[in-house]
Amino acid sequence: MSLAAMQVQVKRNEDGIAAVKAALAAGFGERCLTSAAVCEQHGHTTTWLPNQAPDVVVFAQTTEEVAEIVRLCAQHKVPVIPFGTGSSLEGHVNAPGGGVSIDLSRMNSILEVNAEDLDCVVQAGVTRSQLNAYIRDTGLFFPIDPGADASIGGMTATRASGTNAVRYGTMKDVVLGLTVVTADGRIIRTGGRARKSSAGYDLTRLFVGSEGTLGVITEITLRLFGQPEAISGGVCPFPDVESACNAVIMTIQSGIPVARIELLDKMQVRACNAYSKLDLEETPTLFLEFHGTASGVKEQAELFEAIAADCGGGTFRWSAQAEERTKLWTARHNAYFAAQGLRPGSKAVSTDVCVPISRLAECVAETVADIERRGLLAPIVGHVGDGNFHTLVLVDVNDPKELAESEAFIEQMNWRAIEMGGTCTGEHGVGQGKMKYLKKEHGDALDVMRTLKIALDPDNIMNPGKIVLV
Amino acid sequence: MSLAAMQVQVKRNEDGIAAVKAALAAGFGERCLTSAAVCEQHGHTTTWLPNQAPDVVVFAQTTEEVAEIVRLCAQHKVPVIPFGTGSSLEGHVNAPGGGVSIDLSRMNSILEVNAEDLDCVVQAGVTRSQLNAYIRDTGLFFPIDPGADASIGGMTATRASGTNAVRYGTMKDVVLGLTVVTADGRIIRTGGRARKSSAGYDLTRLFVGSEGTLGVITEITLRLFGQPEAISGGVCPFPDVESACNAVIMTIQSGIPVARIELLDKMQVRACNAYSKLDLEETPTLFLEFHGTASGVKEQAELFEAIAADCGGGTFRWSAQAEERTKLWTARHNAYFAAQGLRPGSKAVSTDVCVPISRLAECVAETVADIERRGLLAPIVGHVGDGNFHTLVLVDVNDPKELAESEAFIEQMNWRAIEMGGTCTGEHGVGQGKMKYLKKEHGDALDVMRTLKIALDPDNIMNPGKIVLV
Repeated sequence: MSLAAMQVQVKRNEDGIAAVKAALAAGFGERCLTSAAVCEQHGHTTTWLPNQAPDVVVFAQTTEEVAEIVRLCAQHKVPVIPFGTGSSLEGHVNAPGGGVSIDLSRMNSILEVNAEDLDCVVQAGVTRSQLNAYIRDTGLFFPIDPGADASIGGMTATRASGTNAVRYGTMKDVVLGLTVVTADGRIIRTGGRARKSSAGYDLTRLFVGSEGTLGVITEITLRLFGQPEAISGGVCPFPDVESACNAVIMTIQSGIPVARIELLDKMQVRACNAYSKLDLEETPTLFLEFHGTASGVKEQAELFEAIAADCGGGTFRWSAQAEERTKLWTARHNAYFAAQGLRPGSKAVSTDVCVPISRLAECVAETVADIERRGLLAPIVGHVGDGNFHTLVLVDVNDPKELAESEAFIEQMNWRAIEMGGTCTGEHGVGQGKMKYLKKEHGDALDVMRTLKIALDPDNIMNPGKIVLV
Repeated sequence: MSLAAMQVQVKRNEDGIAAVKAALAAGFGERCLTSAAVCEQHGHTTTWLPNQAPDVVVFAQTTEEVAEIVRLCAQHKVPVIPFGTGSSLEGHVNAPGGGVSIDLSRMNSILEVNAEDLDCVVQAGVTRSQLNAYIRDTGLFFPIDPGADASIGGMTATRASGTNAVRYGTMKDVVLGLTVVTADGRIIRTGGRARKSSAGYDLTRLFVGSEGTLGVITEITLRLFGQPEAISGGVCPFPDVESACNAVIMTIQSGIPVARIELLDKMQVRACNAYSKLDLEETPTLFLEFHGTASGVKEQAELFEAIAADCGGGTFRWSAQAEERTKLWTARHNAYFAAQGLRPGSKAVSTDVCVPISRLAECVAETVADIERRGLLAPIVGHVGDGNFHTLVLVDVNDPKELAESEAFIEQMNWRAIEMGGTCTGEHGVGQGKMKYLKKEHGDALDVMRTLKIALDPDNIMNPGKIVLV
């Protein structure tokens, strides 16, 4: 696979970069770093794409500092790449034209918690775990949970979701408003704290998922949710992925307000057993969780059990204890690392398709057949309640034939999802790795995206070489 | 009140209009109308703003026809104003620079119902009642219900909501994808049928709420929901609006998944009693509805009753019968007309503020006090679960003093909501009437909206003189 071929080249502006480096060093002192190690670490993400390091990393502490940095870069036409925790999967923080990585990890203050309004305001560097630890005593929680302990800013920028999305939505649904530094260094505020508004264009949702290509998100107003009075959950084994998917489809169609419904295929179960010390039967398995009142979760669980039995599922194994549930869901969140453990030394390439729920069983089954036919090692895990699932292709990059098979598999998987009325990325974002699929998915709408990019970032300094080419 | 002062003037392009009229007459025959009556009817909405008629009305039947009309208008730089049912409230379909009203009411086909995916695709002219009648046998329903039987296209364009939004969201949440004719007459498709996607900029939500100023929405892919297994509901009287609002706040904060929770103040109850032949006690009243399983709705209702009692509410009156519930909610939907009936011959000016729920009681109480102080007749009705409420100010436009008081009241109400962290419009949209409030609400973000408008509609032909000035 030609990993580098997924990366767009952006012409370097050497004079501008030199000028910006000097000005940042003078202005930010020891918060401005240019060592190769730090720069490479800021190009690195949990990704399979080759590293493209920025020239300089600046640790910003305030929105005003971010604006100052962006204005400097705008003046010299130098790229700006926002950096949160570096957990993105598609080369989002690579710097193909060099430039300035703005590390927002020190902007990690929780600015407001309005418990009575079920909302909060956080700086972009706050992580989802940090937020949940902070608000635990209020009786509220923040449900969006990608695998990594990502920053809220990064999650907003990639329109992230996770295991709870089937019940609580994605970042698109829980972000109420933003503070954004635009490409010319202005600070704007979008949205607000009202639950709904029809007051003009939805700038909030334009910036959610824009991956730093339209501006730098520095503060986020988020919806919070009441911690459920009761939680129940557990695991249910199935003889094959199709019967598991059929149970998911019927659960969603029945309107059972399941909080989490996740598929792990046989290989992923094996990986999680080994990595997280579980003792699950090695067969396709659904992980479930129900939120509600005590009687509500009981009722939901009974409805699901009947569906699972109809679909050929085995015995539902309940986790009544919170610790046991935590162990299961921690294992689920570590699925990526567990899968990598199946083949040490391999490169892990994640896929992220999402299809209409009626096509889910077919899409997963065709994917499994394709993995077997090509002789690849690629466990499957997915937020199947949304029709979203991942394969983690474990590739020996020194084997050209395997590399070619892996590339062909990934391409086919994305084209298949798009042809089924779905998307090449349910939650990871486009970054560098998914750009080639957007024309097929969006058609001429991609030109409209390009028009917006040019309008809001005429000098193409905001995370250039990502999402759309200009 | 200077009603006309709310309307931006747009320079007429007489030569272009003449050319377009001639071409449309030749191309569309009897589906192209220019009579004063039809043109005025297409400038008319359920609005208090003076009529500004288009020069010509064309009844389009396909997306391709809409594209053809827009290309013609683009060529001659003539305004294009999309028209659904004419039920918007803020002058959205007025034609300040004349031009072409594209009437989409004949594009009323339901193109797909994918029951297994809980979605459908409709043409823009389909109304919400038409859709619900069509899908009733599938066990699904479409929850968004503004007062009028609006078109789905118009509801999308204004980011409408209604009584069910507290449970099911607004048009922002239920629109999955769109077919849009852009200002240069291209046909694009945004979004898709997958439940979530991170594949680039969220064009769908950029067009939702754009009020025809960025393009003409011709087809909409919508989420549908399972008809609840059980519905219960009823009315609960309160001694004053504050105690009613406090009950709403506690209900939302408790996480009770109420499907509808609506406030009618004393004056609005009086109006509905008269207009819809109800026999409610004339006191502030909450209308409620619970959706779920039989045991779930019982549990929700019991939780609400305990809260209402704590807040000083009277006896909850249950409507076990579907007919009785339908009568109540029909009365609620006719609140606008009922209120107008309180003062025949007056102009009705609707307001539409939405504030964070913690400020709701205070905002409503200050509004009531202001109505009394100014001696106005202005019943209050609201989707209070979202923090959204309306006053319908009934104005004798021949009384200059009353006109001035009404104008001052409305302005103060909007400033108050914005200062409380809310919005001047929760669901009606900006149109012409709310433009003056956007700078205060959005600050410099309004400039970004203007940049987007100019980028997507450089000749300012798409519904000019609405939302932002260019």
